[in-house]
Amino acid sequence: MKKHFLITPGPTPIPPQVAQKESLPILHHRTEEFGKIFLEAIEGMKYIFKTKNDTFIMASSGTGAMESAIVNLLSPGDEVLVTTSGVFGSRWGKICEAYGIKPAILEAEWGKCVAPEAIKKELEKNPKIKVVFTTHTETSTGIVNDLKAIGEIVSKTSAVLVVDAISGLAGQDLCTDDWKLDVVVSGSQKGLMCAPGLAFATVSAKAWPLVEAAKLPRFYWDYRKMKKSVENKETPFTPAVTLIVSLNEAINMIKEQGIDNIFQKTQKLANATRAALKAMNLELYADASCACNVLTSAKVPEGVDGGKIVKMLRQEYGISIAGGQDKLKGKIIRLAHMGYIDQFDLFVAYAGLEMVLTKLGHKLEPGKASAEAERILA
Amino acid sequence: MKKHFLITPGPTPIPPQVAQKESLPILHHRTEEFGKIFLEAIEGMKYIFKTKNDTFIMASSGTGAMESAIVNLLSPGDEVLVTTSGVFGSRWGKICEAYGIKPAILEAEWGKCVAPEAIKKELEKNPKIKVVFTTHTETSTGIVNDLKAIGEIVSKTSAVLVVDAISGLAGQDLCTDDWKLDVVVSGSQKGLMCAPGLAFATVSAKAWPLVEAAKLPRFYWDYRKMKKSVENKETPFTPAVTLIVSLNEAINMIKEQGIDNIFQKTQKLANATRAALKAMNLELYADASCACNVLTSAKVPEGVDGGKIVKMLRQEYGISIAGGQDKLKGKIIRLAHMGYIDQFDLFVAYAGLEMVLTKLGHKLEPGKASAEAERILA
Repeated sequence: MKKHFLITPGPTPIPPQVAQKESLPILHHRTEEFGKIFLEAIEGMKYIFKTKNDTFIMASSGTGAMESAIVNLLSPGDEVLVTTSGVFGSRWGKICEAYGIKPAILEAEWGKCVAPEAIKKELEKNPKIKVVFTTHTETSTGIVNDLKAIGEIVSKTSAVLVVDAISGLAGQDLCTDDWKLDVVVSGSQKGLMCAPGLAFATVSAKAWPLVEAAKLPRFYWDYRKMKKSVENKETPFTPAVTLIVSLNEAINMIKEQGIDNIFQKTQKLANATRAALKAMNLELYADASCACNVLTSAKVPEGVDGGKIVKMLRQEYGISIAGGQDKLKGKIIRLAHMGYIDQFDLFVAYAGLEMVLTKLGHKLEPGKASAEAERILA
Repeated sequence: MKKHFLITPGPTPIPPQVAQKESLPILHHRTEEFGKIFLEAIEGMKYIFKTKNDTFIMASSGTGAMESAIVNLLSPGDEVLVTTSGVFGSRWGKICEAYGIKPAILEAEWGKCVAPEAIKKELEKNPKIKVVFTTHTETSTGIVNDLKAIGEIVSKTSAVLVVDAISGLAGQDLCTDDWKLDVVVSGSQKGLMCAPGLAFATVSAKAWPLVEAAKLPRFYWDYRKMKKSVENKETPFTPAVTLIVSLNEAINMIKEQGIDNIFQKTQKLANATRAALKAMNLELYADASCACNVLTSAKVPEGVDGGKIVKMLRQEYGISIAGGQDKLKGKIIRLAHMGYIDQFDLFVAYAGLEMVLTKLGHKLEPGKASAEAERILA
């Protein structure tokens, strides 16, 4: 018997009261009773996205919602700009390519964010760009993009701005309407504290003409069908009923705390975790100017096997953190502090990490990470 | 406070022990622990599909799995045959059309099944047909197609046979390998007794070259990515973890009973329900030669409002049955007896239906339905 601690960027832990809702007797989805619940979920998601735009719920992982944005906005031959500084930003480009759309790629150095000015230049250089794809928090590196500035720039052009907010939603400040974000997609298993299996998309009035005109093939992901169904408090195909019921519980918890208070809490957890990791003589990976609040990344010290840190933590102590992906494999570690990950869950991670790093020969002063974090969180 | 009874063809009731698994603390999906659970789910699904073929689990509704078959097998300009005798058979054609594939449609009269000989003729007439799409149990009308005969015919050609077994799997006999079915898709919320949100596909050796060659765009649904991931006991994108954990519980229940015993049980429930509906002076809708076992359909008596039957049953008595869809709206009622719908759940439906029909002016002898069903089920 080993106790498990999830300090990973999705799935994040699920509050017991949310998890229990998943196990209630199932409702039929074509009933007034479920219709009410579904509409409540839609309205709740609008509160979290801070939007009045059309908002949809899909049965899929977050990547499905990313694909939905692409097939609903584009036609063959369209020109698009993908901004990226990590694995998830690059996924926009990969999905575009799968659909025969050759994206222009604006790649920022990993660990840094995308410069809004660079996007502006690209749009000036090529006014035919129809859609700009970007990422809210890039969890593969631990940065947050300046969506407010990007939104300001894109809104002044004819292009539509599409944002992957899968890992950032309900953890890092996001104002869909105020920041002029046209399509924002997300998933259930991060800041929303739910099980994976639900994905979301918001669609602005500026984006709808593209949705109406898009020629890429779509059926399951068709926003037009979803919009029509929402009017009947339904989804076009069987919704993930139990997940939606539990989502409402999570939304209520978020509302009770207040979304802006959650952003502040996450900021504090990020500050504490940065201090804790520095106290372990680790160098932070994400550039300080754009480090995100939902996750902290640090470089694996010279001479230590990064994969081993993650493996030992999980196997010997039951603590799950994340390693690096792609070209950062083995080179960084990542601790999440989003959703239902509490400040005291993080002390577990700090202690476990100190123990593992010491075992692996890294020099540090045990307890110093907690001391630093306590100072910030007190 | 009203007690609810689900006698609908999906979502079907979830056994408490399956539902409870949904609410366990969530596991991280990139761990050995979840890998083991995931592989167990894959192996369990192979038992249920009666196949040794590659088997995949997706986070989506059943329609997503239907779309996955189309995008993984076809290229622009391909010729395909869609066989249909109801709403769900026709969905194959609609998805094909969304992808620019113009299907030849072989439509059988609603309430009847598709004649295997007619498929044979179509294939002889057009040897360029690459894929034949058909339906296991067509829940919109209540029939089952003769997949064994269809499989025999298609297997002798170069065409690949794709089957929608969403509502029939684990309720109505299905032998993927013995019947030479190339791609079979299904969903979690019918015979599998789970919550909606998982979809499945099996892919035969005969189908794989088409998967490798297909040119329709695909990313989220890509079987090649899924196959590669299964080798690492993973999915390409975040799986619906809690649903997969609960699926394993459902599979264990099915294995304990034995899949063939479930088919026999469902057959008995179908016999009882047919007798019960006849005892209410209702005429069965599906042709007796091909009525399916997972659901029974009956015509709404002359002068009675079909929509009202369904509505009154739900609103006044808390009993959910299904009405007709599309051109059968208001004209038939449908009682499911698949999954965790037990024989005694059906007595609830018989009694409620007798009460409602009597209120609506239909002449019947109260209790006769139960008497007939008891005779068969004793």
